Amino acid sequence: MTSEKKKIDSVVWGATVITMDASLNVISDAVITISNGKIQSIFSQKDFTPSNRVESIDARGCLVMPGLINGHTHVGMTLLRGIADDLPLHDWLRKHIFPLERKLGNQEFVSLGTRLACLEMIRSGTTLFNDMYYFEEATAKTANEMGVRSICGQTYVEISGVEKASEVFKKFDSFFSEIQKYKLITGALAPHSIYGLSEKLWIEMVAYARQHDLMIHTHLCETKEEVDRIKAERGVSPIEWFDSIGLWERKTVCAHAIELTSADISFLGKRKVGIVYNPESNLKLGNGICPVVELRAAGAPISFGTDGTASNNNLDLFREVDFGTKIQAFKYGVGKLPALESVKMLTIEGAKALHMDHLVGSLEEGKSADLIVLDISAPHAVPLYDWYSYLVYSASQSDVRDTMVAGQLLMKNRQMLRCDEKMILDEALRWGIQIKELNTLLQNRG
Amino acid sequence: MTSEKKKIDSVVWGATVITMDASLNVISDAVITISNGKIQSIFSQKDFTPSNRVESIDARGCLVMPGLINGHTHVGMTLLRGIADDLPLHDWLRKHIFPLERKLGNQEFVSLGTRLACLEMIRSGTTLFNDMYYFEEATAKTANEMGVRSICGQTYVEISGVEKASEVFKKFDSFFSEIQKYKLITGALAPHSIYGLSEKLWIEMVAYARQHDLMIHTHLCETKEEVDRIKAERGVSPIEWFDSIGLWERKTVCAHAIELTSADISFLGKRKVGIVYNPESNLKLGNGICPVVELRAAGAPISFGTDGTASNNNLDLFREVDFGTKIQAFKYGVGKLPALESVKMLTIEGAKALHMDHLVGSLEEGKSADLIVLDISAPHAVPLYDWYSYLVYSASQSDVRDTMVAGQLLMKNRQMLRCDEKMILDEALRWGIQIKELNTLLQNRG
Repeated sequence: MTSEKKKIDSVVWGATVITMDASLNVISDAVITISNGKIQSIFSQKDFTPSNRVESIDARGCLVMPGLINGHTHVGMTLLRGIADDLPLHDWLRKHIFPLERKLGNQEFVSLGTRLACLEMIRSGTTLFNDMYYFEEATAKTANEMGVRSICGQTYVEISGVEKASEVFKKFDSFFSEIQKYKLITGALAPHSIYGLSEKLWIEMVAYARQHDLMIHTHLCETKEEVDRIKAERGVSPIEWFDSIGLWERKTVCAHAIELTSADISFLGKRKVGIVYNPESNLKLGNGICPVVELRAAGAPISFGTDGTASNNNLDLFREVDFGTKIQAFKYGVGKLPALESVKMLTIEGAKALHMDHLVGSLEEGKSADLIVLDISAPHAVPLYDWYSYLVYSASQSDVRDTMVAGQLLMKNRQMLRCDEKMILDEALRWGIQIKELNTLLQNRG
Repeated sequence: MTSEKKKIDSVVWGATVITMDASLNVISDAVITISNGKIQSIFSQKDFTPSNRVESIDARGCLVMPGLINGHTHVGMTLLRGIADDLPLHDWLRKHIFPLERKLGNQEFVSLGTRLACLEMIRSGTTLFNDMYYFEEATAKTANEMGVRSICGQTYVEISGVEKASEVFKKFDSFFSEIQKYKLITGALAPHSIYGLSEKLWIEMVAYARQHDLMIHTHLCETKEEVDRIKAERGVSPIEWFDSIGLWERKTVCAHAIELTSADISFLGKRKVGIVYNPESNLKLGNGICPVVELRAAGAPISFGTDGTASNNNLDLFREVDFGTKIQAFKYGVGKLPALESVKMLTIEGAKALHMDHLVGSLEEGKSADLIVLDISAPHAVPLYDWYSYLVYSASQSDVRDTMVAGQLLMKNRQMLRCDEKMILDEALRWGIQIKELNTLLQNRG
C-alpha cells in the first residue's frame, strides 16, 4: 500500500491546539500540516524543525483553535454601525435604518461594508460568517476576495412596489449561478421572516430550496409582537406554521428564537434545527433571551451570532461569547452553560447549526485549515488555568495574532496580508461623513 | 492683576476631547496643558505647535477622555483569575476561593496580583480603582508604584480564630498611617458585608469611620439569600439596619445592590449613596441585575465595577459598560440608559459614587490629569457617528493608546513606561503553575 501524501504547503507548529474534535483533544507541541487548503495531519512533536520549503507559522507559546463562526450577521450594512442607538426597534428600523437603506442600498455600499466587516472579523478571529442582506452578490464577491468563508443568503422582503415577487426566483437563479465561481462562498436563501413574505411566496421559497438543495436562513420569533401577530392571523405558532409548509424538512438556520414555548423548544430540538443566539443584539434591542440551555438539551445545535453592526455594534465573537454565556447563567443558573459548551457553540456546534461541519468547526485531518493563532501573553490572559474559561471570560479580539482560512493566511502578527487596510478604512470614513449628513437630512425632513 | 501661571510640564494636543464636565463639552483640536499633575488649561487651537521644552503627546486623530473608573474590585486576588468557573457561589467560595486564600494570602501574593491587575487596567484605560481585599497595605504600595490611583479598602471578615476583632482597629490605625505617604492612594474601611461582621463590630466600624472621616466600602444586597437572612434575623432590611447604626450618614459606597425593594431604592437615592454596578460578575454568578435605571432616577450616583478576576474574569471596563448597558435595556426597555449615561457612570458619575469627583472624573481646569488617549482607527471603530455610542458599544481595550494618571504617562503607544511588563507576567505565570497544583491538591483532599 502506497501512502503517497500530497505536497505540504504550510505548517503551523509549536502551539497548544484545541481541536474541538469529537474527543475534545488538546494537543501540546502540536504540528499541523496543511496541503491544498486542508489539514493533512495534526500530531504532537517536541523540538519540531520546519522544512524551509514550506510556509512555516511558528506558534510556540500560542493557542491554536478552529476559526470562530458567526452564525447570523448582515455585513452589507456595516457602514451603518451605531448610526442610531438606544431607540425602540420600530423607530430604529422605520425612522433610520429603512430610509437610509433606501437611499444607500447599492453594490458599492454593500461591497465596502463587507470589506470593512471582513477586516474586523479577520482581526477578531472569525473565519466563517452566515450572512443575510440585499445585494448579496456583492457580499459574496467581496468576502471571497478578502479570503473569509461565508454563507451568503440573498434576502427578500416582500414590500409592494420594491420588487415583483415573480422576478425573485429569476434573480435567485442568476445569483446562485454567479457565486459558483467563488470557492469560499456557499449560497443560501434568506427570506427575511415569517411576516416579511406572503404565505404564497414562503411556499414557493421552500419549493425552490428543495429543488436546488439550498439552506434557508431566516429570522424567527425575535419579538413577542411578531409571535402574537402570527398566532392571531394564522391560528398557529410560527413554528407550527413553518411546519405546515414543510420548512423544517429543509436545511434551515434560524436567528434569534427568543419567544418560544416549551412545545416549540422540543420540536426544534427533535428536528435538530440550527439556531443562532445573538445575545448582544437581542438585549440591546430589548427583545429578550434565547432559551439556549433548553434548546441544546432538546437537541438543537446552536451558533453564536453578532447580528449586524447597527444593533450590536461590533462583530467581536469573543465579546459575544462572554456576554452570552453570562446571560445564560443569569437565566438558568450558574453551571448550566459551562465555558466549554460555549466554545463548542463558537466552533463545531456552530458549524453543525449552519450545516457546515463536514468542512469546518474543528481541527481534524481532512477538514479545511480554517484556524486562528492566539497570543496568550497579555495581562488579561495571565494566569491561564483553563483554556475554555480563558476563551469565554478573558480573551480579547486583540489576542488573535494570525487568522487562516482554507490554508491561506489572512493576518499574520496582526498585519493584513491580502488587502490594503488603510485604504478600506479611509474609504469607510469618507462614506461615514456622507451617511451622517444624509441621516441628518432625513431626520430633519421627518 | 498678574496671571503668573505655573510651569507647564506636558501637553496633550490635537485630539477631540470628551470632557465629561457639567456642560458635556466636546472640544476638537484640543490642547490640554498639564502642570504639577493637574490640568492647567483646555482650549481648542488648530495648527497648535508644542514647545519642545515640555513633554508633548501628539494625539491628532485620537479621542481623549477622562480615565475610566472601576468602582469595585479585589485586585489582590488577580492570580486566581478563572481558577474555578461555572460553579454556584457557595461552592465557588467554600471549595475553591477560601481554601486557596487561606494558603496563599500574604503580602507577596497580593503585591503580584495588584501588579498584574495594574498592567491590565493601564492597558484597558482604567486610572482609578476602588479596591477591597486583605493585605491592602501591599495593594496600596504596589498601586502607587505602578502609578494607578486607588482607593484601598482594608477589608475585614469576622471569622473566629482568624483575627481578633479587638486587634482590627489597631491594625487599621497602622494601615492608615502607613499609606499616607502614597500620593495616589486614598484609604477606606471595607467591612466585607452586613453578614460578615457582628452587629457590635459594625457599630464600631461606623464610629471609627466617623472619627477618621473615612469612606466605608461594603458589599450590599448581592443575593436574595443574604437579604432574606438579615430580614429573618434582624426583622428589618439590610438598608434599614444600616440606617439604624448610622452607616448612611458616613461616606459610603456599596457594591452590587441587586436585591432592593422600591423603598430601598428611594432611600438610597434620597441619601445619594454611591452604588457600584458589576454586571458581568452579577450575571456570571447568577445573582441578578442591579436596578440601575431606578437607582439613578431616585438620585443615587452609580459607578461601573468589574469585581475581581475570579468572578468576571477580566478587568476591562469597555467590556463591562457594553454588557451593563445592554442588560439595562433588557430590564427596562431600550433607551432607558442611553450610551451617554453609561459613559457618565464610567467617569464623572463614577467619581461621585466614590466621593472623588473633586479630583477626577472629568477633564477640567484644576482637576488631576487622569486621562486616556484612544486610537479610533481600528475597523470596529469605523464609521464613528457618535462618541458615546462608540465608547459603549464598539470600543475595545486595545483602542487605548496612552494612559496618564496625575500627569504621569504610564503607557505610551501601548508600551509600559514605568514597569517591566515581561517580568511581571513571567512571575505571574510561575505563580500560576504553583496555584494550579495547590488547587488540585486541595480538591483531591476534598
